[in-house]
Amino acid sequence: MTDQMRCITLARRPDGAPVLEDFGHETRPMPQPAEGEVLVEVSHLSLDPYMRGRMSEGPSYAPSVELGEVMTGQGVGRVLASRVEGVAEGDIVTGMTGWASHALLKADALRKLDGDLPPSTALGVLGMPGLTAWAGLREYGRPKAGETLVVAAATGPVGSLVGQLAKAAGLRTVAVAGGAEKCKLATERFGFDAAVDHRAHPDAESLRAALAEAAPDGVDIYWENVGGKVLEAVLPLMNTHGRIPVCGTIAWYSGAEDTADRLPATWRSILVKRLQVAGFIIFDHWNLMPEFVAEMTPRVAAGEIAFLEDVTEGLENAPAAFLSLLEGGNTGKAVVKLTGEG
Amino acid sequence: MTDQMRCITLARRPDGAPVLEDFGHETRPMPQPAEGEVLVEVSHLSLDPYMRGRMSEGPSYAPSVELGEVMTGQGVGRVLASRVEGVAEGDIVTGMTGWASHALLKADALRKLDGDLPPSTALGVLGMPGLTAWAGLREYGRPKAGETLVVAAATGPVGSLVGQLAKAAGLRTVAVAGGAEKCKLATERFGFDAAVDHRAHPDAESLRAALAEAAPDGVDIYWENVGGKVLEAVLPLMNTHGRIPVCGTIAWYSGAEDTADRLPATWRSILVKRLQVAGFIIFDHWNLMPEFVAEMTPRVAAGEIAFLEDVTEGLENAPAAFLSLLEGGNTGKAVVKLTGEG
Repeated sequence: MTDQMRCITLARRPDGAPVLEDFGHETRPMPQPAEGEVLVEVSHLSLDPYMRGRMSEGPSYAPSVELGEVMTGQGVGRVLASRVEGVAEGDIVTGMTGWASHALLKADALRKLDGDLPPSTALGVLGMPGLTAWAGLREYGRPKAGETLVVAAATGPVGSLVGQLAKAAGLRTVAVAGGAEKCKLATERFGFDAAVDHRAHPDAESLRAALAEAAPDGVDIYWENVGGKVLEAVLPLMNTHGRIPVCGTIAWYSGAEDTADRLPATWRSILVKRLQVAGFIIFDHWNLMPEFVAEMTPRVAAGEIAFLEDVTEGLENAPAAFLSLLEGGNTGKAVVKLTGEG
Repeated sequence: MTDQMRCITLARRPDGAPVLEDFGHETRPMPQPAEGEVLVEVSHLSLDPYMRGRMSEGPSYAPSVELGEVMTGQGVGRVLASRVEGVAEGDIVTGMTGWASHALLKADALRKLDGDLPPSTALGVLGMPGLTAWAGLREYGRPKAGETLVVAAATGPVGSLVGQLAKAAGLRTVAVAGGAEKCKLATERFGFDAAVDHRAHPDAESLRAALAEAAPDGVDIYWENVGGKVLEAVLPLMNTHGRIPVCGTIAWYSGAEDTADRLPATWRSILVKRLQVAGFIIFDHWNLMPEFVAEMTPRVAAGEIAFLEDVTEGLENAPAAFLSLLEGGNTGKAVVKLTGEG
């Protein structure tokens, strides 16, 4: 065992798309585990889109990597030395090792792998991306047999599992991927019913036409990994009561092409702050009217609830009152009073 | 009783903001109720923002008004003639009368009013706007004591009830309204804790600063009635796990000012299609990992679940692999393989 470890650090903050010069390559003394820690020789390191966010300052859902600090990331590896009960030298573990050849992991921040599967699966299909697909589809996608799902970045670790889980649940699954090869992979390996190559469609309109053909009954779930052109293409194809789990917006991670456009910032807010934006139409809830009336009538009658009416006299004045309402010229519930005129 | 009725029709479709010439004024023969109908003399007609949508062609959540047809709308009035069991001449009823002095209502499309409150309340605080506030806040706002709510169009029939219900539930309530008079109304009559005048703030930044002062702990629920500048001002103030019931986007009903901007169309899609856009971060669901691993491991092991890894050899190649990932250059779960190097 060498007495040096190697690591990759954040050398400077990217200005737009990251470049190689933003990373530093360093050698550091091999760390020694304290009580309750293990020293791991990293065999596999996960690279994930979220890391782009950690390279920048400013609010995201996790702290930024500091300048000069080792890039954050999950790894798997073999325990070289253990001061944790129940973990022995030679065990394979996973944890946040960072981009480094060796790392110390604390007892409560490591997970022992003991299956027969390759350890790297703990970084992918059985790791964070897998959990993202599985939990996100269940919680936010809420798939129902017979529906149609569109997945962006469909051959990626998240998208490919989303597609397979949805297919198994009886949905029609449509992949969006970049290039003919990935499209083939989507249908042949991951079992998507159809795949659309976003590179073959330079603009959202053209991509939308291809998607409409692949999803003839519209889209019930759009699994959002990318933002940008794909989102623009899909949105008008969404069916009523559709769900959009916003899992990532990689197309915008390094800034939007069109900075006059507020959609990227909006979409990012929804993601970073886990907002649930739910459009709703009261006619869907009309069945609640009796309960509502029963509860509120006595409260209104008792004067507990204030209300205000902006009464316009005469049917003929309805158009002007309506225009005024659209301009915010009214104060209170706009009502046109008719009786007694005709 | 005259043998003529008067009505207001859609004379032409608006081009942008509606103008008076878009409406027609007509006199028609008085209709006679068939079996199962009543003839109503309309006393009060409701005007509501949704009517703007009905004036245009194209998909919305309800069909457009045809050219020459009576403008749609809810009214209340007195029954002049009844061929419905249980409804008598002189009864006060409400239903979709349209913009007209008289209307026929079918038995299953009318509601008898029998309280002591003024009948016009059935169009407002105890009607569609009231139900919208009450059901929408409960279902999509999910208020919790101690939280902060911001309401756009706060003195309107929906906003004023949202504010009162939220206040009663123990929230801090902040009104956004147009003009000093409406702001006074919001706090004095409707009991909001604070009110911000959007007319006093020509741009979103300035409005945001005022809102930040009124909502020092951030915003947990933004009740969206308007879109436009107010939405732009509020979004960055939202707290994590905030909720945005999208109830209307009146600022954009007649077209966005800046058509290069895709946000208005996005927001409108969310509303019209009742989309639930939920940003989510897998770290919030980390507790599901054991269940996930238990369920998926055998399926992966059995080969039921395909997965793909894009392995880069060597820690030093991590930055290039990451840049490639950001450009979509990878195929499968990006993994950097380290073991055996050092």
